[in-house]
Amino acid sequence: MSALRTAEIIAVGSELLTPHRIDTNSLWLTGRLNDLGIEVRAKAIAGDDHDDLAAIVAAALSRADLVITTGGLGPTDDDVTRDVVSRVLQRPMHENADVVAAIEERFKRRGLKMPGINRRQAQVPEGAVVLNNPHGTAPGLWIDHGQRVVVLFPGPPREMQPMFEAGVAARIEARSPGRRLRRRVLKVNGRSESQVEEIAYPIYSRLGDDAVPVQTTILATPGQIELHLAAAGADVAAIDRRLDDGINALAAALGPVVFSTDGRSLEQVVGDALRTRGWRIAAAESCTGGLLMGRLTEVPGSSAWTIGGVVAYDDEVKRRDLGVPAEMLAEHGAVSEPVAIAMAEGIRGRFAAEIGVGITGIAGPGGGSAAKPVGLVVIAVVTPSAQMVRTLNFPGDRAAVRQHSTAAALDMVRRALDA
Amino acid sequence: MSALRTAEIIAVGSELLTPHRIDTNSLWLTGRLNDLGIEVRAKAIAGDDHDDLAAIVAAALSRADLVITTGGLGPTDDDVTRDVVSRVLQRPMHENADVVAAIEERFKRRGLKMPGINRRQAQVPEGAVVLNNPHGTAPGLWIDHGQRVVVLFPGPPREMQPMFEAGVAARIEARSPGRRLRRRVLKVNGRSESQVEEIAYPIYSRLGDDAVPVQTTILATPGQIELHLAAAGADVAAIDRRLDDGINALAAALGPVVFSTDGRSLEQVVGDALRTRGWRIAAAESCTGGLLMGRLTEVPGSSAWTIGGVVAYDDEVKRRDLGVPAEMLAEHGAVSEPVAIAMAEGIRGRFAAEIGVGITGIAGPGGGSAAKPVGLVVIAVVTPSAQMVRTLNFPGDRAAVRQHSTAAALDMVRRALDA
Repeated sequence: MSALRTAEIIAVGSELLTPHRIDTNSLWLTGRLNDLGIEVRAKAIAGDDHDDLAAIVAAALSRADLVITTGGLGPTDDDVTRDVVSRVLQRPMHENADVVAAIEERFKRRGLKMPGINRRQAQVPEGAVVLNNPHGTAPGLWIDHGQRVVVLFPGPPREMQPMFEAGVAARIEARSPGRRLRRRVLKVNGRSESQVEEIAYPIYSRLGDDAVPVQTTILATPGQIELHLAAAGADVAAIDRRLDDGINALAAALGPVVFSTDGRSLEQVVGDALRTRGWRIAAAESCTGGLLMGRLTEVPGSSAWTIGGVVAYDDEVKRRDLGVPAEMLAEHGAVSEPVAIAMAEGIRGRFAAEIGVGITGIAGPGGGSAAKPVGLVVIAVVTPSAQMVRTLNFPGDRAAVRQHSTAAALDMVRRALDA
Repeated sequence: MSALRTAEIIAVGSELLTPHRIDTNSLWLTGRLNDLGIEVRAKAIAGDDHDDLAAIVAAALSRADLVITTGGLGPTDDDVTRDVVSRVLQRPMHENADVVAAIEERFKRRGLKMPGINRRQAQVPEGAVVLNNPHGTAPGLWIDHGQRVVVLFPGPPREMQPMFEAGVAARIEARSPGRRLRRRVLKVNGRSESQVEEIAYPIYSRLGDDAVPVQTTILATPGQIELHLAAAGADVAAIDRRLDDGINALAAALGPVVFSTDGRSLEQVVGDALRTRGWRIAAAESCTGGLLMGRLTEVPGSSAWTIGGVVAYDDEVKRRDLGVPAEMLAEHGAVSEPVAIAMAEGIRGRFAAEIGVGITGIAGPGGGSAAKPVGLVVIAVVTPSAQMVRTLNFPGDRAAVRQHSTAAALDMVRRALDA
């Protein structure tokens, strides 16, 4: 059998052609296929029209070694994938007694009788391998078709992913071209996409030219820029060395704005640093309304380093619960460096934390002025030995400003812990 | 010219074939095309391979009245959409002097000379209409091709969306089949997808059978089930009546678990109800770590009804800052109804709010026991006249439990305000 080098992924389901739902299975599948050395050449999304889907499957099969479908394996008339693939491959279907028994057993465990309609899920095209589904009624199918392979997965990720790992990954690996794709991710806070691009470009254009060419992708979300490096080949050790060199060169060029080169999130990096120091953190938040604490407590086990915080949306809370002087609020305004510092000091003292954070700002869309526009955010971090405060101007809408703010605050904490 | 009834959307760009980036342009485009009465029959995602993209464009053109591409209009060799479409349609390209001038002008405004490479963006296939791009260098293209239409958009949403509105919507409308697609959304908290399905199914299976058939879609996220109703036809008033009837029938059958039939989010519904009553809210959060306050303050203008809160991750904070008695914590444990009520009362009294909320639970993955498993969450809501407390068991991982918890808390506040 020839090696599988290229794949196309087809997501089936009319709901994926509405404005509300997106195919995310293909992202996960692409990651796993890349791991196995297979390149995804194209993706498609089809509804439940037989002819459209048949044309799309046939076209994919004319181009790719491996065609994967997700969805459309349910028991109803709208579930067309099995029928269409059987027709395109000209492989008639027969009822498989083992599959019927497995579905009956599944219903029986819940004290139910299998509805007659579910028999459709036991139809198997000639020559297909049945892939068991411990998490649902629809089995998957692996079909060797000449030099090509077609795999049918159910749509729910909790059914599809275990089925891939248990029944498909090893089969693909046995026919992989002996090459592997490896990846590294570098994450930055406090620089724009174009600033990162400008610094990184000379390095990654050089990385692309080598004997082991490295592909780079830049991804930007508010408060975080990611550089993804990927390289494929047979010699995994050589690829890993090459990627490590690339990451190291980029990290050196970008400097301390790099907070992660090992896949950890910013809140994980901060949590690990707090744990190492044996320090605990508390936060006083105004414009971010609890989201900084929300991110800190996203990390499992965060109760070891997170004491808690105060959301001081109202100035009265800033005075009463954080001890920000009324005169300071009157003189400088709530969005000011003295107030941010007083909030950080107030929460640190009150909660007996080693690190206190204060955030105050104007998330918008209302509340801005010429002197203090929407997007203006002041962040203070106070430790046993230091005090930092930054006034920042963030772009974007309310959600973006709040996300930028929590990322900037976490990054200031990271740097304070590094110091 | 014949009417445009069906569309296919093709997103172009190798980055969309990695595990990291997804095509979201097609969701927005689908919504706008549906508004104009056009059904999206399929979607595709292609890289920068000429032959693959040519095959995908040709296939779409054989099926759909309208083929829309996004991306691949940049100035580099990787930007292949223009070339490929010109080849598929057999329309040679010529440099368009107006486009060159517009791009030169754009660079000049930033004090720059147009790089020679950008001339590629001024190549226009014969017979194409140029769509101006006020937000970037790549113009869009509208190409009438027999009875079919091909439209090329740049990839960035901030360039694509204004171009659609300014240059394309009216052109499509002029060739629309005189039918419109209308939508309504009903949102539920506190029921599972299958519970909603069971109650709603007899109603929406009836809705599908009428003279104006209504399509229904159910979407589930932790803490929220949405029923989407859509219907298409020429008589907009009749469709709207039909959809309203459907929404009303579903709302009556589902009862008070329905929190929105007008598109508003749960936090907007709660914010509007607080504003109407003239009440203000404060929250004491443990396992949700600030995320409830984060959701309340997501709504612009929320400072009018949100005072603030305390994140009491550590039990010491529950005692000192919320006044939860140490004996109560020792006797019942932090995750218990008495403690949740004491947290809600504590924050309500301390922050002088009309409504106080207390949340305490086990988000996991650690910290669970046989008596108090991961997913166990207790929520209390205290108002001037009432006190509610619920003990809930949520499924899913840490993020899902926390999202369920904030939704359940907001919904309890909604019901308290309704009472």
